[in-house]
Amino acid sequence: MTKELVFGHKNPDTDAIAASIALAYLEKQKGADTEAVALGNPNPETKFVLDYFDVKAPRVVNAALPETDTVMLVDHNEPQQSIDDIESLTVNYVVDHHRISGFNTAKPLYYRAAPYGCCSTIITKMFAEEGIDIPKEIAGLMASAIISDTLLLKSPTTTSVDEEALKALAKIAGIEDVNEYGVKMLKAGTNVDAKTDQE
Amino acid sequence: MTKELVFGHKNPDTDAIAASIALAYLEKQKGADTEAVALGNPNPETKFVLDYFDVKAPRVVNAALPETDTVMLVDHNEPQQSIDDIESLTVNYVVDHHRISGFNTAKPLYYRAAPYGCCSTIITKMFAEEGIDIPKEIAGLMASAIISDTLLLKSPTTTSVDEEALKALAKIAGIEDVNEYGVKMLKAGTNVDAKTDQE
Ligand SMILES: [Mn+2]
Ligand SMILES: [Mn+2]
Ligand SMILES: [Mn+2]
Ligand SMILES: [Mn+2]
Repeated sequence: MTKELVFGHKNPDTDAIAASIALAYLEKQKGADTEAVALGNPNPETKFVLDYFDVKAPRVVNAALPETDTVMLVDHNEPQQSIDDIESLTVNYVVDHHRISGFNTAKPLYYRAAPYGCCSTIITKMFAEEGIDIPKEIAGLMASAIISDTLLLKSPTTTSVDEEALKALAKIAGIEDVNEYGVKMLKAGTNVDAKTDQE
Repeated sequence: MTKELVFGHKNPDTDAIAASIALAYLEKQKGADTEAVALGNPNPETKFVLDYFDVKAPRVVNAALPETDTVMLVDHNEPQQSIDDIESLTVNYVVDHHRISGFNTAKPLYYRAAPYGCCSTIITKMFAEEGIDIPKEIAGLMASAIISDTLLLKSPTTTSVDEEALKALAKIAGIEDVNEYGVKMLKAGTNVDAKTDQE
């Protein structure tokens, strides 16, 4: 079985990291040999989230070769946002919530896109469709990704599907007060706010 | 609500026609104002299928404008295989089982691709996920599309998902002997065979 690396875009945000960990887990349950990796270190917000749910940051890679030539993309599809050797790889799966641009393949693949506020919202639906339970800590990451991408469901990209997913994920993750947690998390990501708090 | 035209590729085959009728129906159940149309007249095989299940051939169109600027594509994504004014339209949904090539959008959209032998197989899964029943005659068209694209599950592109979908669809459609029906249908599409039979 081919090893498959799963990753989000360069300069990863919380959704890029959370969605890669979630999709790698989901596809592993279905029999694939997946590993979530990242195209950069977690930003301060994501670091807060990983610490909060006690999850190790994914290994940082710049290229997939020679380790593997088969990858899955989350939270992006545009080649210039992807891994350095993307043009030499086979993309087997994409889960994304952005426009499609410059993405071409030689063969058929799995592609799952929806115009939701967050990629982790799509993956939440995929877990439900497959009837696979989301582990508590992964639900915590995915809930944080929705909070991050939708600014606590306030961004204009927010849909009712994001709202429902966040509610379900927060319950699994044991987040009692989503707003309280969300504000703390968003503040951890904004150095300005953090500074203001210290001042 | 924006009217949305749903269609397969130019020179439509049975999957292009069946998948457009199936997706238009599914999305209508979910509240969209959809109409299945076609980029050409049905070929002899598809004519046989439509007659067999007593379904009217979709209206043939060459352009979506000025009727609507919003469309859904099935069984293709490449612009040169699509409607003449594709570059002026918003593609809101794609369901396809081909490689992705030259397909770019300005905004996020629904895109559902899988490397199965037939687009109608993907839509069969979508009906199940949404918990929506497939009407008997639409199941007949979709079963025929799988038979057509996979040559009765014999083509190298055939997957176990196609097999399962065909079984389920044939049951709904009341096709008692899939092989007998399939051979009859495939023969209707090949003038050579038809001639041979007459000779
Ligand atoms: Mn992102
Ligand atoms: Mn995102
Ligand atoms: Mn076709
Ligand atoms: Mn097809």
